[in-house]
Amino acid sequence: MSLETLGQAARGAAYQLATISTAQKNQALLAIASELEARQSTILAANAKDIAAGREAGLSEAMLDRLLLTPERLAGIANDVRKVVSLDDPVGAELDSRMLENGLRLSRRRVPIGVIGVIYEARPNVTIDIAALCLKTGNASILRGGRETFHSNLELVKVIQAALASAGLPIAAVQYIDNPDRALVAELLRLDRYVDMIIPRGGAGLHKMCKENSSIPVIIGGFGISHVFVDASADLTRSLAVIDNAKVQRPSACNALDTLLVHEAIAADLLPQLVLRMNEQGVSLVADATAMGLLADADGLREAGAEDFDTEWLSLTLGVKVVADVHEALAHMREHNASHSDAILTNDLYNAECFINGAGSAAVYVNASTRFTDGAQFGLGAEVAVSTQMLHARGPMGLAELTSYKWVGQADYLSRP
Amino acid sequence: MSLETLGQAARGAAYQLATISTAQKNQALLAIASELEARQSTILAANAKDIAAGREAGLSEAMLDRLLLTPERLAGIANDVRKVVSLDDPVGAELDSRMLENGLRLSRRRVPIGVIGVIYEARPNVTIDIAALCLKTGNASILRGGRETFHSNLELVKVIQAALASAGLPIAAVQYIDNPDRALVAELLRLDRYVDMIIPRGGAGLHKMCKENSSIPVIIGGFGISHVFVDASADLTRSLAVIDNAKVQRPSACNALDTLLVHEAIAADLLPQLVLRMNEQGVSLVADATAMGLLADADGLREAGAEDFDTEWLSLTLGVKVVADVHEALAHMREHNASHSDAILTNDLYNAECFINGAGSAAVYVNASTRFTDGAQFGLGAEVAVSTQMLHARGPMGLAELTSYKWVGQADYLSRP
Repeated sequence: MSLETLGQAARGAAYQLATISTAQKNQALLAIASELEARQSTILAANAKDIAAGREAGLSEAMLDRLLLTPERLAGIANDVRKVVSLDDPVGAELDSRMLENGLRLSRRRVPIGVIGVIYEARPNVTIDIAALCLKTGNASILRGGRETFHSNLELVKVIQAALASAGLPIAAVQYIDNPDRALVAELLRLDRYVDMIIPRGGAGLHKMCKENSSIPVIIGGFGISHVFVDASADLTRSLAVIDNAKVQRPSACNALDTLLVHEAIAADLLPQLVLRMNEQGVSLVADATAMGLLADADGLREAGAEDFDTEWLSLTLGVKVVADVHEALAHMREHNASHSDAILTNDLYNAECFINGAGSAAVYVNASTRFTDGAQFGLGAEVAVSTQMLHARGPMGLAELTSYKWVGQADYLSRP
Repeated sequence: MSLETLGQAARGAAYQLATISTAQKNQALLAIASELEARQSTILAANAKDIAAGREAGLSEAMLDRLLLTPERLAGIANDVRKVVSLDDPVGAELDSRMLENGLRLSRRRVPIGVIGVIYEARPNVTIDIAALCLKTGNASILRGGRETFHSNLELVKVIQAALASAGLPIAAVQYIDNPDRALVAELLRLDRYVDMIIPRGGAGLHKMCKENSSIPVIIGGFGISHVFVDASADLTRSLAVIDNAKVQRPSACNALDTLLVHEAIAADLLPQLVLRMNEQGVSLVADATAMGLLADADGLREAGAEDFDTEWLSLTLGVKVVADVHEALAHMREHNASHSDAILTNDLYNAECFINGAGSAAVYVNASTRFTDGAQFGLGAEVAVSTQMLHARGPMGLAELTSYKWVGQADYLSRP
């Protein structure tokens, strides 16, 4: 099927989805969950093909594990869909409303965005996850997964489309680009006559490619250097606990700590204690010249080179730098892509406000860990993406961020003659 | 100055603007208003150069009038800036706030977007207008005006930068691309490492060019076919008044009526009355075959060809088409770029809801004119642009739509030991 045909069908489905009830959308979601369970053996057989192909292509065991579906994982995916059913549907709610002097009642009503293109890598659960979130918010979706999960994805989309049909919804509400030609990704990014938004789910390279080649708005996010600045007035015990959590709890996460900035007045107290804690946790330190002198006993210590403070470690490595004050900390962060999650540890009100307003990050913390940036932690119920751009939405995006609004003006009938 | 230098300076200025007080921003705005008046003769002299060059280039009198500055027009522009001073500053306000179970107080705080690139045509008032709105919201701006007002714009930017300096703000808060080379527009559209948003102010061609070439989010809008659908239950007298207002009040506006859709059950009653009214107003009708028969006495009547219902008239021409019901009306609108402002005239509750939810437009009216789509009418205080896209903002954009938000998480100190 050509992308033109696919886009046109998605647009038609989007019109239908925009006017159906939450009950009908939930019915389709429940059908997806049941079909996932009913077709377990077919899905696992398709997944086995992907795993075999991946093994032949020499993928690492870690990567193969990311691709793998098991009965337990499928049940988990089905339950995630049932969780989406339980979330409030944002569509139709009015954001605000006012009466104009001329008698017009003017409201902003939440509406679906329309057609969403999703380009993602590896994990097959994204196929179900993103399709379910789009469906719940009345958006049609066009999916393009990675080639490593090609067979799994095709089978999962069949499950979704069967569920849509059983609930009386158009199967074009969720479509998959099943031609592996990479040129189709570029074509999708220019399909602005049908597609309203592109969500890339993958690494920085994928986001950059989308940003540079898309004529459709793209949700950029999911990476950035995370900083913790320990101010002179910070509580040392508490600081060590926050640093430990931010660095160690899940080092591969995009909100994990990359660079620790330490106020010079507290460096001599904090850094030797940091060494003990980080040695215990197996964290290697990469430090600037000033910090080096206070970190002598650290395991695997080395002095930072030109690019170290621009590196998102995603592992048990931590950059350390001594700064003169909150302003130098902010200046460092601006130079080194602080755009995701950053924290100040302080008891100084002025410095806290200065940091909150001066940091360019999507999420800013005072005396808390950068690890909190997460849709579930924030109580959003779902996480579509973590945006680090300035437009539309920032930080964790939930269901509401898959909607737009329209202005509704209704004439005042109270005054009709 | 290279765009790289300009972009870097704008980014630096944006950091400063993000943390200054509303009072300081207002002081700079008041200085701009005073400087406009103090430097009147210099500005008018520069404008006279543009007018002379325009006349030599053979611009129409209407176009020359758009470019022309007079003492009265300059005073008007200065007063518009003073009006921006009186508007509330949206920056710093918190959109919402919640306490998480773990003691984190989580808020979303309004912040400036950062650096805004504005590409516009003709009218020199845009230079002051957009710079003032960006400044009020703490955004740095990079402006690129049309070559027809090159000398005027350079002088106006000098005024702005002098005012910025007098208020102690960085002059890079408002910069102008003074190299007329068109390649710089393309370069600006790829300056995503410094620029966060592009606002094109001009025709459909400019918007299309920006959308297709920009790696920065673009605010698309300002055009689209506007429809009024007269349902079977509509009040005829009221309908004629709304149609008259929507078509005749300001035909050159983007929210003026382009196509009238009439329910077949009411066509024989409405259309002969419409002919009388439109003949009186000097409006020519372009009609589908069914409507033609009921419009015989209309002045300048002709049958619609393939592209007429895709034409934004911007003049005293009106397309007319008879449809079977609200669903056919919506189907027609979907085929013919209803994305800006559309109205249903009806007393039928189901059809009204169906139209509100089914129309893809940024603004939808029930028994009111499409002409209401306007920042001033909506009480927004200012109008930056009228967006017809789905992301970030839709319809008239005021000051709040020049802001983004950041998540602020603060640890709970009530429970600190």
